[in-house]
Amino acid sequence: MAATQALYDELLELWRKALLLGSVQSQLGWDEQTYLPPGGAAHRADQMSLLAGMVHQQLTAPRLGELISALEAGEKPAGSDGVFEANLREARRRYDRLTRLPTRLVEELTRVTSLAQQNWVEARKKSDFAMFRPWLEKIVALKREEASALAGGGGGGVPFDALLDEYEPGAKAAEVAKIFAALREALVPLVQVIANSKKRPDVSILTRRYPKAAQVEFAKSAAAVIGFSFQDGRLDESPHPFCSGMGPGDCRLTTRYDEHHFPGAFFGVLHEAGHGLYEQGLDPKAFGTPIGEAASLGIHESQSRMWENFVGRSQAFWKHFYPQAQAKFPEALASVPRDGFYAAVNDVRPSFIRVEADEVTYNLHIMIRFELEQQLIAGALQPADVPAAWNAQYTQALGITPPKDAEGCLQDIHWSGGMLGYFPTYALGNMYAAQLFEAARKALGDLDSQFSKGDFVPLRTWLKDNVHRLGRQFPPGRLVERITGRPLSHQPLVAHLKAKFEPLYGL
Amino acid sequence: MAATQALYDELLELWRKALLLGSVQSQLGWDEQTYLPPGGAAHRADQMSLLAGMVHQQLTAPRLGELISALEAGEKPAGSDGVFEANLREARRRYDRLTRLPTRLVEELTRVTSLAQQNWVEARKKSDFAMFRPWLEKIVALKREEASALAGGGGGGVPFDALLDEYEPGAKAAEVAKIFAALREALVPLVQVIANSKKRPDVSILTRRYPKAAQVEFAKSAAAVIGFSFQDGRLDESPHPFCSGMGPGDCRLTTRYDEHHFPGAFFGVLHEAGHGLYEQGLDPKAFGTPIGEAASLGIHESQSRMWENFVGRSQAFWKHFYPQAQAKFPEALASVPRDGFYAAVNDVRPSFIRVEADEVTYNLHIMIRFELEQQLIAGALQPADVPAAWNAQYTQALGITPPKDAEGCLQDIHWSGGMLGYFPTYALGNMYAAQLFEAARKALGDLDSQFSKGDFVPLRTWLKDNVHRLGRQFPPGRLVERITGRPLSHQPLVAHLKAKFEPLYGL
Repeated sequence: MAATQALYDELLELWRKALLLGSVQSQLGWDEQTYLPPGGAAHRADQMSLLAGMVHQQLTAPRLGELISALEAGEKPAGSDGVFEANLREARRRYDRLTRLPTRLVEELTRVTSLAQQNWVEARKKSDFAMFRPWLEKIVALKREEASALAGGGGGGVPFDALLDEYEPGAKAAEVAKIFAALREALVPLVQVIANSKKRPDVSILTRRYPKAAQVEFAKSAAAVIGFSFQDGRLDESPHPFCSGMGPGDCRLTTRYDEHHFPGAFFGVLHEAGHGLYEQGLDPKAFGTPIGEAASLGIHESQSRMWENFVGRSQAFWKHFYPQAQAKFPEALASVPRDGFYAAVNDVRPSFIRVEADEVTYNLHIMIRFELEQQLIAGALQPADVPAAWNAQYTQALGITPPKDAEGCLQDIHWSGGMLGYFPTYALGNMYAAQLFEAARKALGDLDSQFSKGDFVPLRTWLKDNVHRLGRQFPPGRLVERITGRPLSHQPLVAHLKAKFEPLYGL
Repeated sequence: MAATQALYDELLELWRKALLLGSVQSQLGWDEQTYLPPGGAAHRADQMSLLAGMVHQQLTAPRLGELISALEAGEKPAGSDGVFEANLREARRRYDRLTRLPTRLVEELTRVTSLAQQNWVEARKKSDFAMFRPWLEKIVALKREEASALAGGGGGGVPFDALLDEYEPGAKAAEVAKIFAALREALVPLVQVIANSKKRPDVSILTRRYPKAAQVEFAKSAAAVIGFSFQDGRLDESPHPFCSGMGPGDCRLTTRYDEHHFPGAFFGVLHEAGHGLYEQGLDPKAFGTPIGEAASLGIHESQSRMWENFVGRSQAFWKHFYPQAQAKFPEALASVPRDGFYAAVNDVRPSFIRVEADEVTYNLHIMIRFELEQQLIAGALQPADVPAAWNAQYTQALGITPPKDAEGCLQDIHWSGGMLGYFPTYALGNMYAAQLFEAARKALGDLDSQFSKGDFVPLRTWLKDNVHRLGRQFPPGRLVERITGRPLSHQPLVAHLKAKFEPLYGL
């Protein structure tokens, strides 16, 4: 028993040092997106690559493998409450993943994706897929190699599952496809009837002038009211909004401001603050342990989408915040009734750009990407054929055809960064959000009345206790089942969308 | 010969990796002073301590010692131009210093000083020495341990010299004391006659309203005109202004703004930009080699003080910049003639705050700190007695007694950061600056006429060629002797001060 404890302590200490170094990588990454002077890019790449190599080396150290095996073979420590087993499970999962990848492949992927991302920026600017194609070909080839190395080389594993597992531990493409199909079946007719509705909100009010300084103040105050701690975090600007949890007491959000587009920054900040509440709600004592981080990207996204959409785009939320919004932006909003504003921020219409899509059509964007990337990894779709396949999918699912690749298959950064298997977590996040929100409603009573009074403490506390503090103790599917009493389903999301949008569009 | 080259390459590669990791420490340090949320302090201390330990371990690796010894014993590479020898000299110096320090002490110092700095910020804000005292006690105890380890434990070395050598390679406290005494002998009577002069500039014009946004713009534009590249650098705010060169293409300045005190931020930025020009003038190809950094802190300070005082507080500088200043700050300066402004920014009078002190009294502030920190390291002064000793010294040297510790012994960040032995480099820097500036005048002709036209290229280029690009190729004393033809002397500084201030005060 004493021996077990010593081995366990050694495992946790090695892990903690590696993740502490990993948190330095996050800091460098944040700085790169916010304050790094242009001339420092090459030096920053050298720093990042050095750290990435060191962290990888530390997490694949043979001693770590020995410790994990010894602990698996030994007795559990006395009074183990599941944390020991979860740490061991997660350490094994990550160690195995990392050690299955040849160093050459890791280095090559790092090099190629770093160049490919720069190239993608240019290609997107010029809407020139031909320019990006050779890079996509290289990346798909490398990711196929990675998927097959991770899936155990003919051991019966599904290659795409191995990629998915990086972002959503334990998820299987076949199961994701099934739940996506069910969701799609409900969404397509809903999009259709909304498109046919005579009711159309006046969205022009959202592109009036919203001075930047007032946007910053308003967004920060809303983030603080829902519970994001600025004692333990910040809000800065970056070209692509993100949230980075660097460790206990340090979580940083970014956004971008457009003086003639209110929703971008405001709902962007609510979204990132939702991620931030998760990071700030993790158990600080568990930092650096295998289970000390968020359960999965899907669960992470459930938090951001819940605060952005289920809370932030609700009637109740604006009952509290709309008078403040009118006071902050009198020029734009003084003469706009709350109902008109509420309808405008919930405008539904098929569009080309995923990150600007409404709650209803958003998931269709994800399904298209999921379908295409599975085909790419299976070798059933060639990178050269992506634009045609992309456009065909949009035409079929949303009834619109991108006029150019910048508004089509070149719009997202993910593939250029080698992140295949990442997209599904966005739609999973929406479904997790709906199912968790439904459970929160049951547990907490009249959430709307709380929101109308500006009281977000019950929801935040419930999420912290049931989701945040547990970290990675449970795989995402089990976590949701544990909280809501049933496996993940598309139904709560469909129910939420119908309950919200049918009245809005007079259906 | 081929063997020598291989050993040398291996040495440089190990060194480069360690310094690249060291540059990550700089990044974390900069962030700590600028954007770190308060709640992240403890986590940041953990990160810093981890990196400090790793860098220390890498720079004390036995293999490095073997390589240095083998290269010292072997032949020089063909065509060696002094760079090989200088790299070897500097590698030996640093390796020997570091191997004398136990890793535990290095990590402990990093951890304690990271926390102490956060604490100092609070203590200074509240002017509460009692709050800071336990941290100062910890730090002094650790620095005494460090000094005695470095001095070789009874090997006859002077402990304080060992601390000094960190910042000013090769400097000895006894020699510094001697040159300080000579300088003091000239300064005290000069301060005295100026104090007795009937001429007093109207300094109230400097505390009129200078809107912050205009201060930021004006300071940035001046920094750019003297040659600081914002493509390769930034200017941010921090409680204590500093310059951090993180590596090629990334050099960051900070300052602080007071809307009712013009000189603080403006000359602060010129000062830090002077440091920045040094960092930006280093040979980027030499980054990561033992001689790839600045020669010493004294030489570094010579650059900042030269741009701040010898250039920035000159008549010629304001011939160019004053019309712009009047246009930026019409409310404060429209009715002020240039001579009055020039006299005001060169006001000499005993004051409490070192960083705001004039050129004449500044060095007396340094001598006080040098005296006190020698006593602290010798154990002749207890940290608890610092406020009383500090105030007594100010009363004696400058005839004024700080009314509170925020304007006394809590004003500087250095001790909270463990930087004992650092202060003397400021006064050395002033003397280096005077001696180098005298040489520049001889080499470049009528500098004043160039400055009046806003042309700072000749001086900057001369400094870059003679000082910046050489990095650490020569020890500081030899560098100055090489450029100016004689060893460091207090006389050029005294001559500069007399030539400038005697006419200003009608002496």
